[in-house]
Amino acid sequence: MSYSRRVADLLRAAGAEEGDNVRVSVGVIERSGVLMPHHEFSDPDVVVLKQRSGYNIGVRLTEGATLTMASKGAKRDREVKSPIIAEGKKRVAVLGTGGTIASYVDYRTGAVHPALSATDLVSAVPEMAEVCQVDAKVIFSIFSENMRVEYWQRLAEEVADRLSRGDEGVIVPHGTDTMGYTSAALSFMLDDLPGPVVLVGAQRSSDRPSSDAYTNLISAARFCVGSDAAEVFVLMHGSMSDDTFAVHRGTRVRKMHTSRRDAFQSINEGPVARMDQLGRIEALSPYRVKSSSKVRLRKGMEEKVCLVHFYPGMSPSALESFLAQHQGAVIAGTGLGHVSRELVEVVRKQAKKGLPVVMTSQCLSGRVNLNVYDTGRDLLNAGVIPGEDMLPETALVKLMWVLANTKGPEQTRSLMLTNMKGEISERREA
Amino acid sequence: MSYSRRVADLLRAAGAEEGDNVRVSVGVIERSGVLMPHHEFSDPDVVVLKQRSGYNIGVRLTEGATLTMASKGAKRDREVKSPIIAEGKKRVAVLGTGGTIASYVDYRTGAVHPALSATDLVSAVPEMAEVCQVDAKVIFSIFSENMRVEYWQRLAEEVADRLSRGDEGVIVPHGTDTMGYTSAALSFMLDDLPGPVVLVGAQRSSDRPSSDAYTNLISAARFCVGSDAAEVFVLMHGSMSDDTFAVHRGTRVRKMHTSRRDAFQSINEGPVARMDQLGRIEALSPYRVKSSSKVRLRKGMEEKVCLVHFYPGMSPSALESFLAQHQGAVIAGTGLGHVSRELVEVVRKQAKKGLPVVMTSQCLSGRVNLNVYDTGRDLLNAGVIPGEDMLPETALVKLMWVLANTKGPEQTRSLMLTNMKGEISERREA
Repeated sequence: MSYSRRVADLLRAAGAEEGDNVRVSVGVIERSGVLMPHHEFSDPDVVVLKQRSGYNIGVRLTEGATLTMASKGAKRDREVKSPIIAEGKKRVAVLGTGGTIASYVDYRTGAVHPALSATDLVSAVPEMAEVCQVDAKVIFSIFSENMRVEYWQRLAEEVADRLSRGDEGVIVPHGTDTMGYTSAALSFMLDDLPGPVVLVGAQRSSDRPSSDAYTNLISAARFCVGSDAAEVFVLMHGSMSDDTFAVHRGTRVRKMHTSRRDAFQSINEGPVARMDQLGRIEALSPYRVKSSSKVRLRKGMEEKVCLVHFYPGMSPSALESFLAQHQGAVIAGTGLGHVSRELVEVVRKQAKKGLPVVMTSQCLSGRVNLNVYDTGRDLLNAGVIPGEDMLPETALVKLMWVLANTKGPEQTRSLMLTNMKGEISERREA
Repeated sequence: MSYSRRVADLLRAAGAEEGDNVRVSVGVIERSGVLMPHHEFSDPDVVVLKQRSGYNIGVRLTEGATLTMASKGAKRDREVKSPIIAEGKKRVAVLGTGGTIASYVDYRTGAVHPALSATDLVSAVPEMAEVCQVDAKVIFSIFSENMRVEYWQRLAEEVADRLSRGDEGVIVPHGTDTMGYTSAALSFMLDDLPGPVVLVGAQRSSDRPSSDAYTNLISAARFCVGSDAAEVFVLMHGSMSDDTFAVHRGTRVRKMHTSRRDAFQSINEGPVARMDQLGRIEALSPYRVKSSSKVRLRKGMEEKVCLVHFYPGMSPSALESFLAQHQGAVIAGTGLGHVSRELVEVVRKQAKKGLPVVMTSQCLSGRVNLNVYDTGRDLLNAGVIPGEDMLPETALVKLMWVLANTKGPEQTRSLMLTNMKGEISERREA
């Protein structure tokens, strides 16, 4: 606890401790809620209150602020730091990886740092104990822009281990920047899942007003226990408000906004399920169900695969030397999957040398079709593999996996054209 | 005319000519409409009927099909090939560049070719003569994936010339693949526009059932004449149906679907205006208005600018050699504008050597913010220019223009941070 003198005095005068219901007023603003733990990185003048919605709000107690006790909290609410044991409930693993969901604002600089352990995070959400028996562990703690293959592999190993040991599901708090890439990677690396793997993030750090960390986390726990789905999913806010959550398939989800809490969207299909704040689950599309299957891990990944965004005037020589440094390439072409004439020749040359090249679209939505225009047919003739309606990012991760887990160009092509984990939908005639 | 024997016989028996109202039935399907011209590339068995909505539909007259006359057309409808002169009406230029809007399906191969001249295209939309005096010219005819700086320059010159000569507005039929890049390029190249420049495309070729070519074109003409707006816009279908059209600002528009007719969307702001099929215009946000200003052309563009999509595991050495081949770079980072730690060092090195690097987000929606996380602040320290809420593609085109039209890194940075043509919106606190 490192509250400022003023806040410490206010708390002492009111006899208020963590877990108590308090009311604060600062000028015309009044707020009440359960007093949450104060952490090392928190602003000494800020108290964090958990509101009845599950929503946390930070209030800065400036000069003249008042704080009164509304009601003493139940003992459980105060002991938020003790390990959570929910006897008789299903066990759910929480595997921390870092990111905003486990971050604090450093109020000296205004920046966000990864500072909160998975246990701290889970302890801050006492409602989780009502849902499941939580087994939390930090695998690593990075900002997700630093994610790379070896982290995916460590995470996949740990997930497989937990599911093999009978955990009902696995929750993976993860930075939102690359959460869609990781969910795709886990989708391809893990087969025959007996239960769900739910990646969950936050767009606002956990000690900020309007943080979505807690609501997303408790919803993920409810989903692991309450749903019969067994795939890799991303669960995030489904709207700007706190009352719906969307469950996206791991191979279809993309971060589509830099800051909104409902930034994550399923592309080329709807979310798999929707949840409300009471944990009621509405299935929206078919999914793989839970079973007693034994999870199978194939964690190989070819790291030298690139994703190239085509644009008018892209230099053929620069593209050529870039492609030549890789073992596989995904291009996000324009429209139905096009690049300029000069680049078709570059692709032809590289493909002839054995480089697998997959074409996707920078439009993101819709399906590539290389049969409509001359450029597309030239690309097909050049050996390009059409990426169907895969996201460019998912195609990248899939190609990394396919190159490490297959032998030869024919198998690569065939697998890239096959729907393995919901990443490609059946073609419908327009 | 190269109809098949069967279709030619049916037309002759019914006494039907181009411009007549006919009714066809094939099995259980019945369709009626005005018989449209038959072109060199059209399927010999297909008749194209213009329906009352303005919508064209192609019907394949298979064995057993019937065709009857509903009513003889007015003479004007038949003379669709004659030049359009609307005395006393405002003059609007139509500058053809190619693309699906000016394309035919080659029914032997199923592929689409650019084959229709601007004049042919305009002639196929007799309603345009009721709206304006059309002056059509083909500047070039390419698929838009082959667009590059010299084409942008030729087009900008011609647009400036037409507006200088007093045309009310300029319509640019354009391939949809890179229409957003071209609209951004024209936005930066042309200043003090006296009237609107409206890029218009089609997602279905003009002799296909459900082509959007005609409805988009006539709507563009109505917008040029009926609106008081004077910016560079993209006008396309505003929904899946044919009854609304959206007018997007040229620096904000992006193709977000490979095939839907409403693929174009304004990102980080709404469309500037909406139109219905009767040409009624609803302004949705502020815009620059028409005036008697003299258009100013600054067509310089630095061609060696790249757009790089960041992804987990991107190779620092491959990125470094790619950047080194350019005079400027735009990165589409993750989230608020991030790349991995190793890549921050690559960027730092290149920026030190004088390469301007602009950070945008692959989320597309939202604003980059390099002040929230350590990675962002490291990037700022490395010299990266935050791209605010610019689209990555618009930032690319803008940087090309800025590098050719300014002197020195300070002016480059300052202009990239300045809203020039609606590409950046004012910061609002979250």
